[in-house]
Amino acid sequence: MKPSIPKGTRDFGPMEMAKRNYIFNTIRSVYELYGFQQIETPAQETLQTLMGKYGEEGDKLLFKILNSGDYLSKLSEDEVSQISNPNPQTPNHIAAKICEKGLRYDLTVPFARYVVMHREELQLPFKRYQVQPVWRADRPQKGRYREFYQFDGDVVGSDSLINEVELMQIVDTVFSRFKVRVAIKINNRKILTGIAETIGAADKIVDITVAIDKFDKIGIDGVRDELAKDGLSEEQIKQLEPIITLDGTNYQRLQKLKKILKGSTVGLKGIEETEFILNMLKKCPMKNKMELDLTLARGLSYYTGAIFEVKALDTQIGSISGGGRYDNLTGIFGMPGLSGVGISFGVDRIYDVLNALNLYPKNSLQTSQVLFVNFGKDETAYCMPILSQLRKKGIRAELFPDDAKMKKQMNYANEKGIPYVVMAGSGEIQKGKIKLKDMATGKQRMLKADQLIDILKK
Amino acid sequence: MKPSIPKGTRDFGPMEMAKRNYIFNTIRSVYELYGFQQIETPAQETLQTLMGKYGEEGDKLLFKILNSGDYLSKLSEDEVSQISNPNPQTPNHIAAKICEKGLRYDLTVPFARYVVMHREELQLPFKRYQVQPVWRADRPQKGRYREFYQFDGDVVGSDSLINEVELMQIVDTVFSRFKVRVAIKINNRKILTGIAETIGAADKIVDITVAIDKFDKIGIDGVRDELAKDGLSEEQIKQLEPIITLDGTNYQRLQKLKKILKGSTVGLKGIEETEFILNMLKKCPMKNKMELDLTLARGLSYYTGAIFEVKALDTQIGSISGGGRYDNLTGIFGMPGLSGVGISFGVDRIYDVLNALNLYPKNSLQTSQVLFVNFGKDETAYCMPILSQLRKKGIRAELFPDDAKMKKQMNYANEKGIPYVVMAGSGEIQKGKIKLKDMATGKQRMLKADQLIDILKK
Repeated sequence: MKPSIPKGTRDFGPMEMAKRNYIFNTIRSVYELYGFQQIETPAQETLQTLMGKYGEEGDKLLFKILNSGDYLSKLSEDEVSQISNPNPQTPNHIAAKICEKGLRYDLTVPFARYVVMHREELQLPFKRYQVQPVWRADRPQKGRYREFYQFDGDVVGSDSLINEVELMQIVDTVFSRFKVRVAIKINNRKILTGIAETIGAADKIVDITVAIDKFDKIGIDGVRDELAKDGLSEEQIKQLEPIITLDGTNYQRLQKLKKILKGSTVGLKGIEETEFILNMLKKCPMKNKMELDLTLARGLSYYTGAIFEVKALDTQIGSISGGGRYDNLTGIFGMPGLSGVGISFGVDRIYDVLNALNLYPKNSLQTSQVLFVNFGKDETAYCMPILSQLRKKGIRAELFPDDAKMKKQMNYANEKGIPYVVMAGSGEIQKGKIKLKDMATGKQRMLKADQLIDILKK
Repeated sequence: MKPSIPKGTRDFGPMEMAKRNYIFNTIRSVYELYGFQQIETPAQETLQTLMGKYGEEGDKLLFKILNSGDYLSKLSEDEVSQISNPNPQTPNHIAAKICEKGLRYDLTVPFARYVVMHREELQLPFKRYQVQPVWRADRPQKGRYREFYQFDGDVVGSDSLINEVELMQIVDTVFSRFKVRVAIKINNRKILTGIAETIGAADKIVDITVAIDKFDKIGIDGVRDELAKDGLSEEQIKQLEPIITLDGTNYQRLQKLKKILKGSTVGLKGIEETEFILNMLKKCPMKNKMELDLTLARGLSYYTGAIFEVKALDTQIGSISGGGRYDNLTGIFGMPGLSGVGISFGVDRIYDVLNALNLYPKNSLQTSQVLFVNFGKDETAYCMPILSQLRKKGIRAELFPDDAKMKKQMNYANEKGIPYVVMAGSGEIQKGKIKLKDMATGKQRMLKADQLIDILKK
């Protein structure tokens, strides 16, 4: 039998894990600098929790878990007969009878479920981060997997814009630690609503942002054509023009927009929120630039205020993080009125960016600092107490367990990227010393155990 | 709709996660001191990989995942008709047709599958650790969950006993870091085989170890009765007696055992291996005691050499780690002859032990080091740059995002266990200072930002 893994899933080997751990640990420590605390939820959720939360398409992409035990006994004779005459509805209908649980599809719905179930014990505002795999029965393709990690941070129970400000600082800190230059794009659903209100096309807001987005590529005439195709009137398109061609700094564009949206209370509110966030961020110098982007809409319909998206500047990989403000995440579970704001780091894409730009710090990928060569039983007995001393000092050290050929042992050190090798044969043992070889330079030195520790501690 | 989670699963809140992270990070860093590298495998494995590896009972406890799409079309008319007339075989038979994947049941089989699939790129010996959840459709009860983490370390591709020695050192280091006193029990399957051979009862080895195990409780007469009930002859029981009543130090008992098992090559080999391990460990002082335990058998049939188990001494919780040597883990996937040895840390039980003995270091449970009270917009604008400075210095700090009542904000600090609170009202702002309150003593001080950093860095 030749083993395999389910399509769309991955094994992560030691090097990939070292890189992923570097990414996860960096994001984790920045969240913690801002008072976020980790939670974890189970991989399995009831289908009642999951179904209907991700649209009709999402429901189809849920992995469902077969009930254990005699799961077929819950089917009526009628349902059994439907199996022999399948129609497009049958599979989901039967599945509902033989499956009660599914694998989590994202971290947002389980988080909402968590907040509602644990509301009595939670201290609001609750700042949580969560990093766990999610599963989607999507058609696998390059960069799209059926199991992948999400890394989300949210603050619920506070409608203060300070939370938005701090999320932007978190993004800025994370990517400066990665040494990845990014543009942090910000917009506000209320501004988008204001634009739609102002031109009397509230239902066309998605078409409008898509068209505006193309301005750089197709010019004002192209955008006009596009909008006409979408069913906007000559008059409406004319009203939109100053918004499409808006230029200047973030501040200048917000001032111009204020005039254009002066008739829309909600639009002005969106501008005010954006101004507050940008002004507050100016007081605390950032490494990366904030960029007001009126074409930023983000797909998720539950956003109600600020929305943001992060793009890596030096690669073509696209969006690597995003999030926004929502007003009613927990409403679906019977707990309305809890406002929140969150961000999700796209760790698979960040992994691709750091790979493409070769940005992993050397020490984040290093395993053992030193390998002791195995020359046989007596030499091993001499080396073991020295190894114990090293490890007590926090030095990552290993002894090749087998008395194998020198070449094999040196090859092991090379392949594993171990920078130093210790040799202790009868000559060294007689002198009470060891020989240290620097694998990069080939230089060898005779040392006492103390000296070895000093060199490796550096 | 009142949300719930599937039975036998758990949410982990911030405090539980802090404790679990402390446990995981401690074990992880010890593994890394010994040159182990992390891997991860997908939650889903093909049923072909999983089925038949855990016995008939295990197969029933696998969580199976319903095929996506039109999964029912794979059933023949005959199979459909069987659904209406279910017999005890039907569920598994049908399940095999509508499910191709399952959730991993342990980390050992996926590791074996991993080694076989990646053998070309692996540097042997391969020392890997892995910490991921596993799923079992067991009847949930106190301390037994349907989703729980395993934390395994294995070395494959080396039959050197140095690996056993180092695993014992890892166990000793992990539990001394936890400050949990443990007994590390060791035995060897070859010794057990030798005993069975010597008395001519190779098939009764499990009954024998179970009976010997009761010696402390029921005395020699009780053990005799038990063995007779198991079908051992008078003569066989007589031969066993010196083994049951073996006393003295590890070394003394091994010497006595050598005489008793002198006719069994495999038995003597087991003794020699155990002597080697114990002798080598004596050269490197350990915090905890090694204890030869001839009643230690461990359930898993794939062990072939050393076996070990760890018991916490100051609680009644029982076994908290265990493992052993196996000779043919990857044989089931077509790669015979690869020897390995591994250990598994029972993280849920370790969690219970540390809770029972209250052994979490204070700083492992601390979230933010300081909370800035929110007095309103101007005060916030004054505080934000100071917060940025603190975080740049690595200090975990937060500002209460809302301009809420003082009592609510102080309560937040208390509940979250934040030891310091900063207050900056108009008085402090005029002086360019802040007021720091020590939540434990109630003492307050006026400080400059630099002084604040100095205090919090300590």
